[in-house]
This record gives sequence, C-alpha cells and structure tokens, in this order.
Amino acid sequence: MAATDMDKLVSLCKRRGFIFQSSEIYGGINGFWDYGPLGVELKKNIKEAWWTDMVRNPPIGPKGEEITMVGLDCSIIMNPRVWEASGHVSGFSDPMVDCKTEGCKSRFRADQIPGMACPLKPSKAPGQYEKCSLTEPRTFNLMFQTYVGALQDASSVAYLRPETAQGIFANFKNVVDSSRVKVPFGIAQIGKAFRNEINPRNYTFRSREFEQMEIEFFCHPDESRMWYEWWRDLRKSWYARMGISSDKLRPREQDEKELAFYSCGTTDIEYLFPFSDEPAELEGVAHRGAYDLGQHTKFSGQDLTYFDETAWERDKASHGTNSFKEFAKKPENAELLGKYQYLPHVIEPSAGADRFTLAVLCEAYTEDKVPNDKGGEEERLVLKIHPRLAPIKAAILPLMNKDGLPEKAMALYRELKAEFNVFYDDKGAIGRRYRRQDEAGTPFCITIDPESMTNDSVTIRDRDSLKQRRIPIREVANEIRAALRPTW
Amino acid sequence: MAATDMDKLVSLCKRRGFIFQSSEIYGGINGFWDYGPLGVELKKNIKEAWWTDMVRNPPIGPKGEEITMVGLDCSIIMNPRVWEASGHVSGFSDPMVDCKTEGCKSRFRADQIPGMACPLKPSKAPGQYEKCSLTEPRTFNLMFQTYVGALQDASSVAYLRPETAQGIFANFKNVVDSSRVKVPFGIAQIGKAFRNEINPRNYTFRSREFEQMEIEFFCHPDESRMWYEWWRDLRKSWYARMGISSDKLRPREQDEKELAFYSCGTTDIEYLFPFSDEPAELEGVAHRGAYDLGQHTKFSGQDLTYFDETAWERDKASHGTNSFKEFAKKPENAELLGKYQYLPHVIEPSAGADRFTLAVLCEAYTEDKVPNDKGGEEERLVLKIHPRLAPIKAAILPLMNKDGLPEKAMALYRELKAEFNVFYDDKGAIGRRYRRQDEAGTPFCITIDPESMTNDSVTIRDRDSLKQRRIPIREVANEIRAALRPTW
Repeated sequence: MAATDMDKLVSLCKRRGFIFQSSEIYGGINGFWDYGPLGVELKKNIKEAWWTDMVRNPPIGPKGEEITMVGLDCSIIMNPRVWEASGHVSGFSDPMVDCKTEGCKSRFRADQIPGMACPLKPSKAPGQYEKCSLTEPRTFNLMFQTYVGALQDASSVAYLRPETAQGIFANFKNVVDSSRVKVPFGIAQIGKAFRNEINPRNYTFRSREFEQMEIEFFCHPDESRMWYEWWRDLRKSWYARMGISSDKLRPREQDEKELAFYSCGTTDIEYLFPFSDEPAELEGVAHRGAYDLGQHTKFSGQDLTYFDETAWERDKASHGTNSFKEFAKKPENAELLGKYQYLPHVIEPSAGADRFTLAVLCEAYTEDKVPNDKGGEEERLVLKIHPRLAPIKAAILPLMNKDGLPEKAMALYRELKAEFNVFYDDKGAIGRRYRRQDEAGTPFCITIDPESMTNDSVTIRDRDSLKQRRIPIREVANEIRAALRPTW
Repeated sequence: MAATDMDKLVSLCKRRGFIFQSSEIYGGINGFWDYGPLGVELKKNIKEAWWTDMVRNPPIGPKGEEITMVGLDCSIIMNPRVWEASGHVSGFSDPMVDCKTEGCKSRFRADQIPGMACPLKPSKAPGQYEKCSLTEPRTFNLMFQTYVGALQDASSVAYLRPETAQGIFANFKNVVDSSRVKVPFGIAQIGKAFRNEINPRNYTFRSREFEQMEIEFFCHPDESRMWYEWWRDLRKSWYARMGISSDKLRPREQDEKELAFYSCGTTDIEYLFPFSDEPAELEGVAHRGAYDLGQHTKFSGQDLTYFDETAWERDKASHGTNSFKEFAKKPENAELLGKYQYLPHVIEPSAGADRFTLAVLCEAYTEDKVPNDKGGEEERLVLKIHPRLAPIKAAILPLMNKDGLPEKAMALYRELKAEFNVFYDDKGAIGRRYRRQDEAGTPFCITIDPESMTNDSVTIRDRDSLKQRRIPIREVANEIRAALRPTW
C-alpha cells in the first residue's frame, strides 16, 4: 500500500471493528488503543501462532536436536529492585526541565524546548516565547510510576513494566529448579508493557500501552553465536511464513557502533510502514551475553549460575573425582570450570504484537478490481491476511433465503463453528456479502445454492484468486483445516 | 482437599512450576504472582476454553436461536472520565487516616486502627499504642493511580482499570456501528485488572493484579430476566463441565438486601476453597439493568440508545409511516417507542481467571494410593485436571533407552506436538516418570515398549483410573482429540 493510504487503513480499521481509539466517547486518550471484534481475533491469532510455532512446536535445532521451550506469565507490577538491576530506573529516561515561574511549574523535555523558553508563557511576538527560568535538565523516567499499598512514599513506589523480558530473568532460577529444563532452552512470554512516551505516534506503532512477545534463550557462552544466528534466521523466516512476503520486510544487522556494550550482535527486523520512508522495528533479535543474569546476580545476591549436571556426570571419571566442589577447588581446573558451571548467555528475540498486527494489516490492505454481475468490473477493498491469522476463517452464505437453503447453511455453520471462527450471513446480495468478507480478510466464502440441496455440494470461493470450486459439503472442514496448518 | 492442605498445594505449585511469587529473588512483592511453565499453560487453556465456549461457539439460546457474541480487547489505562462515569473515582475506596505526628505522617485504613492510635508509635505497655493525632478519615481509592505524559498534575492523572467491564460499555456504540450485531448480543473481554488491596491474601485469590473474563450481554429490557436466568444457568453448568463437579461449587443467589439498587438479580458462583470455611466468589452473574450505559450517556453526552431497525422495518407499515422520527414525535406513541429505541439492559457474567485457575488446582489436588512394582502400594500425588485444561495433554515415554524405542517414541512425539502440548521423557524408571506426569496433571501417558517395535502399538495410561490399554500407534492422536473435545 502507498504511503498516502495510511488514512484509508485507519478508517477501515475503525469502520470494520479492527481498532478503535481508547475511550473514544470521552475524546480518547493519547497513546492508547482498543481492539474491536475483528481486531481482537486477529491479534489473538497472531499471539497463538507465535506461541504454537515458538513454544509448543518450534522447528528442529541447528544440530537436528529438539529445542526446549517453556512459557511464563509474570505480573506487570514487580518489585522495583528488578528495574534497578535492569538499569531502567537510572537509564530509561529523557532529559526534563521544570519552569520555575510562580503559577507555571510546568515540566518539559529539555530537547524539545527551543531556546529553553517556557512555551506556556508566550511573549507578545507571535510564535515567540519569553525566556523563563528553567531548572537544570534532569532525567524524566519513561516508566509509568504508581504506589502499591496504602502508604504513598518512596518505599511504596512501583513501576508498570516497560518490557516483559525482566520477569523472565528474575524467574530463571525458578524455572530451572521446577521444570528440569537443561541449557540450552528458552523461556517465552506474551504480555502487556507500558512506556510513558512523550510523543506517541504513528497509530498503534508507538503507543504507551503495548503487548510484547519475548523469548529469552539461554545457552552456553561458547555456543551463543550459533544460537544468535539460528534465532535471527528463524525469526526472519517466521514473518515470511505469516504472510509478510513483500520486500517491505527488512532485516537489518546492527553495525558495531549501534550495539550495546555487552552485545556481539543484534538484528532489527524492520518493516516499511506506510507512515514513513524509513523502515521501523517489528522485532529485535539481540545477543545479550550474560549481561542481564549478571545484573540480577549483583542486585539480588542470588547465585544464578547454571550447573550442567549432564556434562559433569559424563566427564567426572576422567577428572578423577565424583565431587565437583573438590574439582573446582584445584587451581589447575580454573579454566575448565566454565564448561560445567556458568552464567548462560542469552539470545533475545523480542517482538511487538501490536506492531506485527499493524504490519499484517498494512501488508494485507489491497485495492483491486473484480468482475461484477453485469460483465463489467468493480473496485474492491480486500485484506489478504494469511488464513492462520484471519479473524474469520470462513463465511457461510445461503444464496437465497428460501427452499431450505438457510437451514442447510445453518447446519454447516453449526458444524464448523465447533472448530473454527466462522460467520453466518444471509443478508443482502451475494456480491455484497463477498465484499464484506473481503474487507474482513475472510479467506473462504462457502455458498449454499440450489444444487447443494440435490447433491450435498457447496461452492468455496478463494478470497485472493476469486476462484470458485464446487466441493462436497463434507470436505469443507478439511479445506479450511488444510489452509490453517502451520507450514514448518 | 482438606483445609490444612493449602500449604501442600502452594508448595506443589512452586515445586512444579505452576505459580511463583513475583520477583521472588528480590523478596517478592505483596499481592503479585507469576505463572510458571505449567501454570501459564493451565491458565491459557482456561482462557481459551472460556473464549471458545462463550464467544466462538456458545450454546443455542433459550428460544433455540443462535447467540451472537463478539470479542474486544481494551487498554488497561483509559481516559479517567470512564471511572468518573462508572463511579469508581468517587466510590471505590476505603476510609483512610494520616498520622499528624512530625516524622511519622503514616497512612492507615481507619477501620483497622484500634482506638485511632498510630501503630508506628508504640507505648511502653506491650501491645498498646500511644494515641496520636490522626486526621479525620477520608477516602482512599483502591484504583492504582499514575500520570500519563510528561506533566505530573491533576490533568494527567490516570488509573489502572479495576475491572475490564467499563471498556466494553465505552465501546458499545463502536461495536454496534462496526459489527452489524443486533440486540440481543454479547461482548466478551479477557484482560488484566488492578486493585490496590490494603490486605492481599489467600494466595492468588485476592491479589492486586489479576485477570478477568467478562461478558456484557445487551438485551431488550423486557427480556432481561430471561437472559439473566439463561446466563446464570449457563455459567453454573460451565464450571461443572470444566471439571469442577464436587459440591464445593456453590452458586448463591443474592437476596434483595445485597443487590445493587439498579439490579434485579445477581448470582455469586462460589467455591469452597481450602483457605476458608466460607465459600468465596469465582464469578458474579449480575443483572445490571441500564445503569452502566445510562452513566456513560450522562458523562459522555453521547447517545448510546440502540435502534432496532429490524423491528421497525417489520412494524412500520402498521404504524402508517416510514419515518421513525415522525412516529416518535406523536405523543400517543410514547409508550411504544421503547420497543424500537432503547438503552439495552445488561447481563454481566464476570469471572476471575486466576480464581478459577486456583479452584481447578484445589479441585484437582488428590492424594491416593497406587500399586507399585513390588506388589504393594505407594502414595501418589495427582492433579485430576480436566483434559481440556491440563497443561500437558500426553507424555511420550520410551520404556527403555535402547533397541530403537527412543527413536520410535520421538517420531510419535514430533507428530503429536504439531497439534497438542506434549512432553517427551526418557529419564528414569517408568513408575517415577508416571508420578511426575501425575503431579503435572497430564491425562495420558503413552509408553513405547518392545511390542511397539513389532506391531506398531503403544500403551495408553489413564491418569485417574490408572488403566492401561494397548492401542495402535495411529490411534493415539484420535484418543487425545476425543478427550479434548468440548462437551456442549
């Protein structure tokens, strides 16, 4: 879709119930969005596809092995020490200034105040502001802050998490102890995160409340480059498999200057949204080394090292001792210790559920022409969403409201809805009903016509090719099932 | 399970990775909990079962009709006017007092301060407190408060939603306009909500961050009693179908004195948790009349009435006009207007996802005795969770690690994991592996033994009856599928 079409997409999303402005009847609230009936199904399908493909049924690993993945669901409000350890309390901020003028006391982002003049005190020259006395710039933290408990003081300050990742690190030991997982393994989490953006923009792309799909994959330091490359390639290919097949998907390896000091590689998976000429980040796949577990070790005082019991059991005879403790005490083994006990390195594929939802909508939005009843052509608006992600999988349409067609259609609808999200529609001309489903991104329209009454067949219309085939009614579920099957 | 067993359940939940204390390595944070690898799957299955049975495939209605249900997913932070309209800003509070003593300034719940003495200023008599000067009691709101944007003042105050319901009411008009739904219909939402409880307690039952599964069902006032009774009965029976079949599930119709002034009926679906002698609320099914839409009409100034076009189109000829406006102007039609244009009444089945998760665990927790290898008996701990909700559906267990058994087991595992959450385990004695799956609530253990190599059969062990049957390997998926099928 062209850059100028962003408005059309926003309008379609509201008109068809994909995305609404939060609290719209009260004038909205900047940076917050709601998902309507179609949007909630689309986003649910995206999260479900991610969970299925990454957690429950990930592909085979780089050496032909099974990949061990488990899930986690942490609270949004955590002990604030978590955010001290992560660096968010001290570093997740913009420079802020306060106006010292009596009666003003307003707060601004220092880099957005031209000439350090308070914009609430305009001078008589239009467009100019009087200089006023501003405080020295100090940091304004982007974390939303609140108080937990009845007391409102420094001891009760807490934050809405600005990312889901830290909940995973804080639970690393709990997961290892409870789940018998062995390194390498990954922990996945889907959940809301919050950032008090000074300037939310670009529709749902940069909002103040958003949902992340994050994996922290823990591995031995010696294998971390291999795993980084494996996850980077897997995550790139996943988007293509979800229907983002155009050249608007642009993975970009960060160069050395961009990397965090602890990282030996990060790839931004970017998408060329219509709101900008520059591609914008859908997901970051980052090699984070042992940075996060190291920070939490330091701040919590807990031992977060991993002991590889399997490797030790295998090798201990060759080291001439059954006791790892004893082995570890000998200075000559110092270099070997890290083979058995170490702080794992972390590969972090961190995706935005809302950003990917928006990319799916942008990628799917298509205006084309279709033949009409009168032998001519008419314009149509169609969302070419991958069947796995489409909110509605099939629409069941009796051609006419008589001769038993609605009853037969309803029977099929009731059979299918036990398994799929399907829609029954008997209102209006068939062409108009097709158009409505095209706009909703429904991959299949199943029409029950007079022939259905004689030979138990239906027509199945493909949203993208517009081709209609006649198939036995008992084959409909199989057709839908086949289109929804993950393609790993 | 007995009341004294709550500690055992909490311990199992930590040991096996169902539930962890949030931020445990930092000493936790009171009233917040994390779901571990087994817990996240259990809770996901609960939410998915609710969504499938209530939104995608609800049962047939009281008159044999289809029930129209759509979903919604609103932001946690909304325009604060929403909470003025709902009454939460003014009414969702406890009485608070501050200590006026210099250096203290602490804040308390007035009804928890014996004799209005500051507990932080103990007198010399043990257990006694010096009276100190407290402010007059004032309201402490249970909503978590934060500031949105760079300015921290009254204009930027916002709240974390204390319930998901209001997002649905605020979007009523958007949903009607975008989705072509006709009253009666329901809007469903699953999402986090927050309450700054003074005294979080009873494990995950009363926590400060929790997840709700709410439906607002909109109907004509004349039919609201019928719909209230239908939803009440449906929601009661749903819990039984999810495996809460004991007499610990106790629906309780509120008597007239308990009802909110606008309500003509509320049923609390309660469960007798082991932490108390009194049953506690899992879900409330409330007849809320037109209260909420009325409040939002008043506060937003928007017209939230519903116009029943179908009824008008059907009747207009008999009223002798095509124009509803004209019809509405005539005083003699005043009483008839409400047939076509009205503020719908609302039936609200509001369930707690965390509370139901806890009830499932309590109901499932069983200590029994099973035969051991030596002809005797041993104790086992088993979670008898309904197969639809069980975190792991089946464990694939090669009896021995040789003779091609692991390879055959792995092939079956890889086939099944494309469809189900399954677990592969080749470590340790088979009896011990069964025990581990019993504790996780896994309904089926599939064992590959030497006979499997000759005739492609496996044994399938039922968690509850302990019965083992030999079945063809190609039937395994069907056996699991049958156990997971919704039973409406």
